[in-house]
Parts: sequence; structure tokens; C-alpha cells
Amino acid sequence: MIKVGIVGYGNLGRGVTLAVNYAKDMECVGIFTRRNPESLKPAVDFPVYSIDKLKDFKGQIDVLLLCGGSATDLPSTTAEYLKDFNTVDSFDTHAKIPEYFNKLDKIAKEHGTLSAISIGWDPGVFSIARMLFGAVLPNGNDYTFWGKGVSQGHSDAIRRIDGVQNAIQYTIPKEEALLAVRSGSNPKLATGDKHLRECFVAVKDGADKALIEKTIKEMPNYFADYQTIVNFVTEEEVKERQKKLSHGGFVFRSGSTTDEHAHLLELSLKLDSNPEFTGSVLTAYGRAVAKMAKEGVTGCVTAFDIPIKYLSPLSNEDLRAHLL
Amino acid sequence: MIKVGIVGYGNLGRGVTLAVNYAKDMECVGIFTRRNPESLKPAVDFPVYSIDKLKDFKGQIDVLLLCGGSATDLPSTTAEYLKDFNTVDSFDTHAKIPEYFNKLDKIAKEHGTLSAISIGWDPGVFSIARMLFGAVLPNGNDYTFWGKGVSQGHSDAIRRIDGVQNAIQYTIPKEEALLAVRSGSNPKLATGDKHLRECFVAVKDGADKALIEKTIKEMPNYFADYQTIVNFVTEEEVKERQKKLSHGGFVFRSGSTTDEHAHLLELSLKLDSNPEFTGSVLTAYGRAVAKMAKEGVTGCVTAFDIPIKYLSPLSNEDLRAHLL
Repeated sequence: MIKVGIVGYGNLGRGVTLAVNYAKDMECVGIFTRRNPESLKPAVDFPVYSIDKLKDFKGQIDVLLLCGGSATDLPSTTAEYLKDFNTVDSFDTHAKIPEYFNKLDKIAKEHGTLSAISIGWDPGVFSIARMLFGAVLPNGNDYTFWGKGVSQGHSDAIRRIDGVQNAIQYTIPKEEALLAVRSGSNPKLATGDKHLRECFVAVKDGADKALIEKTIKEMPNYFADYQTIVNFVTEEEVKERQKKLSHGGFVFRSGSTTDEHAHLLELSLKLDSNPEFTGSVLTAYGRAVAKMAKEGVTGCVTAFDIPIKYLSPLSNEDLRAHLL
Repeated sequence: MIKVGIVGYGNLGRGVTLAVNYAKDMECVGIFTRRNPESLKPAVDFPVYSIDKLKDFKGQIDVLLLCGGSATDLPSTTAEYLKDFNTVDSFDTHAKIPEYFNKLDKIAKEHGTLSAISIGWDPGVFSIARMLFGAVLPNGNDYTFWGKGVSQGHSDAIRRIDGVQNAIQYTIPKEEALLAVRSGSNPKLATGDKHLRECFVAVKDGADKALIEKTIKEMPNYFADYQTIVNFVTEEEVKERQKKLSHGGFVFRSGSTTDEHAHLLELSLKLDSNPEFTGSVLTAYGRAVAKMAKEGVTGCVTAFDIPIKYLSPLSNEDLRAHLL
């Protein structure tokens, strides 16, 4: 049995908890939280401890599944955990991945531990598709589309506007852009050509809706380069929408091997629950890290470095006989 | 530079030749053929040698890309090549993969060489999707669809019928089955529920078309369990169709993480040229085998064992910075 620790119990921690419970080759040693452990009632009846107790479990946990956020939690804590444990995380700040990788690689090698970073569906499953597709069809173009799904960063940006009570923002792939890519025409598409942004906004009493709409649509980086739809709705509707965490997207490689022969490779995900699926991916990579660490691998790795056989509970013989 | 040898120059050998020519980090030491080397005019001006000369190149080739067929060529020759060279092949007789793997693994380990088997799009890219999807969404069902594309085995079976001059058979995914899978309803589908078979048949003078059609449609294993369409056409039309080698297919994983939350993962390939794309995949894995062999890896491996970073000519730093 692979002994797992779960660090953090938000939406992702709950998803990981469900996935670890489903895995017959794993047992959960504990959920570790910054909250009062008594106050936490997890979806599965696993033991709950204060994060301060984590050090006591050194040597008793094969891999820690880190369920904190990329903005502050992971950059400030993963390096510390790595001194005593192997880890898997979902670090998704793409621009900072090289720096994060180098820092963790050094610490993990010093302490003889193994860290898999940037695991989930993007980065993660989508990264595998981008890299594999590009390697097997080198003459071509990549297209990644996200959604339909909620962008937390864009929702936050709207909520910071004066007069806004609550808001949620959906990133939606443009149908005409998807069709253009699928046609094999290899269009040049900026991010704003591929997606539209739909916002549902609840305002405070007396707020200037026209000004709020203008502020959203002209916000640099976030909305200015996009077709943006703003809907004013009740606080209840925003809250109802915030309960649904569906997401998904597409990775395409459109290219050719000769002038006469074009090829189109496509991966798509339709996810009813982003955190539950991400948690399931994190758990499969937890299995991989536990196995690789047992074989003596140390340092920092990504989805590019890990042979996928390690993700499965099946034996290599069964994988070859039934899935190859 | 990675030094490559290409063994066999049929449709796949031609595809590999084009792909090796496109790869800036590879050079082709030679194409090795059973034919008279003088008679062969490859698509790229690489040196051509008789296969009898291959042994002379021991130590001068990093990897051999084997472009023979799975029925007789690969089972009878790969083991011999492996005594002196690292190899990549496209062995695709699914039922015989375990036996083939075990035989080659033993020989490769004895001779300190490395063999990647069953590389292409199925087995190969599709295998990666099936395995990865199942590992990250363990509670669910797999569906693989092939086509639209030519099945060589089914075309051969028709050609063996009395009175048939020439024939070509297409395997075509059934639209209603694709829709049922995409709906998330997790239907139970036999292979015959997922595909229909369309045949284009040219008959000899005076042949009994009604009897030929009945013989095709009732042929056990090949057609009896399928919806089969038989079109009688001219020999010229069959020959024209035999020039086009397009293919493709779909791999789905439909499953859930909780009763409320279903997920659908889909990979699809649309290939204008099956042998050119397969050749491109084989070439990328040739790069991987050359790199892994240099690191001291020996034995037999499949797409499940090879970290995908090895497929790319880019550095690990570039992969992390740009594709993760």
C-alpha cells in the first residue's frame, strides 16, 4: 500500500481525498490542515491533523499530495515539505515554472526526496499532449483552447471594481476559431481570437452599471483584448454559479509531413468538476512518485520526465497485454 | 547528431525517410533493403545498401528504424538486428505483443542494446491515451474507434474470394456510436456496434456478384458481425483508391469522480497519410532510443516506459519553459 498525506483541504483537497479513497493501492495517513482539525469534516473519514503535526509523520508517508494554491501556498511551503517528504503539486503559474523547478530540484537532491510539480490537466495532461504532438508532428502549429470554465483570476479582477458585490467569469472557446483550426487551415490566432469572456456581475445598491461594464471591458491584460460579454444578475445567481466548477478545453496540433499530406491531432477534456478531476490526476502522479522514489529517483520532475506506466496500479505485463 | 539506419523501404520506410530528413538532429547513415540497392530511388537522396551489408555498420549507427511488417518481417528479423543495434519498430499484432516483448527483452539485455516496440499511432499514441486516461480517471470506460481508413487485412480477405479481381475495404466509425459515447451515457458497444465496413470490389468477367456480396457479408470474424456495405466498381477505381492512405480514429475515456460529476477525455487523429505519420512517430522514438541507450538503458521498452521528454529535440529547460 502506498501511504499518502494530503496537505490542504479546499476544493482540490476534497478532490484528492475522493481519488485516494477510490485507489485500492493507497491508504491515507492523514489530511493536514492549517485550520482547527476538529472543525474539518472531510468527504471521506480520513484522520485530520494540524499541519504543525506533519513533521511527526516523517518516514511514515510515501508521498504528500499538496493541495494549496500556486499564488502563495506552494511557493512558500513546498521547499520546506521536500526536506522530509516526497511531494506532488499542481503549481500552474506557467511563467514561474523554471524558477520553481530549479529551486525544488536542488532541495530535493540535497535531501534525497522526489518532487513532481505542475501536475493536473493544464499544466499536466495538456502539457503531455502539446509535447507529444509536437514531437511526432514537428512541422505544424499548436493551439490550446480553455473552457468553457471559470477563470478565478478574472473573477477576482471584476470583484475588485468599485460597486461590484460579487462576480464570476467564464472563458469560452470561440466556435469559429475551433472550426478554423479543425479545418486544417493553420490560422494565426491570438489568445483573444480563440476565446470570449462572459461575466456575471452582481452590483451594490446604487452602483453605476454602465461604468462597471466599461471598466471591465477596458481592463488591460484581463479583458481589453477579448470579446467580453457582461451580464448583470442577482447575488443569488452568482452564488449558484459559483457552486459549479466545470471546465475543460482542447489541445490541437495541425501540421503536415509533405505538401500533400496534412494531419490533425486533437485532445479534448470535458470536466464536470475541475477540482475533482485535477485531484484524480494528482493522485495518479502520487502513485508514480511513490514508485519512482522507491527506485531511488530524487530531484524535481514534471509530466515530461515520468514514464506513464508508473501512473497505473496495473503491472507492466497487464499494461502491455491490455492497453498497448 | 543521431545516426540512423532505415531498414526496409515500403510505404513506412518512405515515411520514415521523410521524417529523418526533416529532423535537424539526425543523419541517415543508410537505407537497407532486400531489393537490389541500385533499383531503389528513395524520396530523399540517402545512401542505399543491401541489407546484407548492415553488419558492416555495427558501431556506426545509433538506432535502426525497422520498417518491415508485423506478420513476418519483424518477428523473424528484429531479434537478429538487436544483437548489434538499438531498434525501433511498429509491431502491431496486439495479441502477440507480450511474447514479442519477452523475446526481445532477453536478447537486448544479453547484448546491451535497447529495443522500442509497437511504436506508431495504434499501438503508440493511442496506447498512451488509453493508459494515461485510465490512470487519471480510474472509474470509467474506454472506447477506441478506428477510421475512416483502409484495413489491409479485410481488403486481403475479399481479394481471396473466387471471382474477385481487386478490392479495398474501409473501416468507418458509426456516427451514432460516437455520439452515444460523447453524450457520456457509457454505452456497451461491441466492435461491430462501433464500426461499419465499406468495400469497393472489382470482379472478374462473368463473376457472380450476388454470391460474392453474400460471401463477404457472411465471412466470419471479418464481416459477419458488422454492418457491411459492398460496392461493385471498376478495377481502375479500386486502384485509384489504393493510392490514398488516409486513416485516423478516436480514443475516449468516459467516467466520473462522484455520482454528480462525469468527465469525458477524447483523443482524435485525422491523418492524410497513415505511413507518413507512423514514420514520423517512429522517428521521434528513434531519437528517444538513441538518447536512452546513451544513458545505458538496455532491454525492451514500449511507449509506456519512455519519458516523453526524450522524443523532442528541445532541451528539458526549453520543454519546461515553453510546453509545460
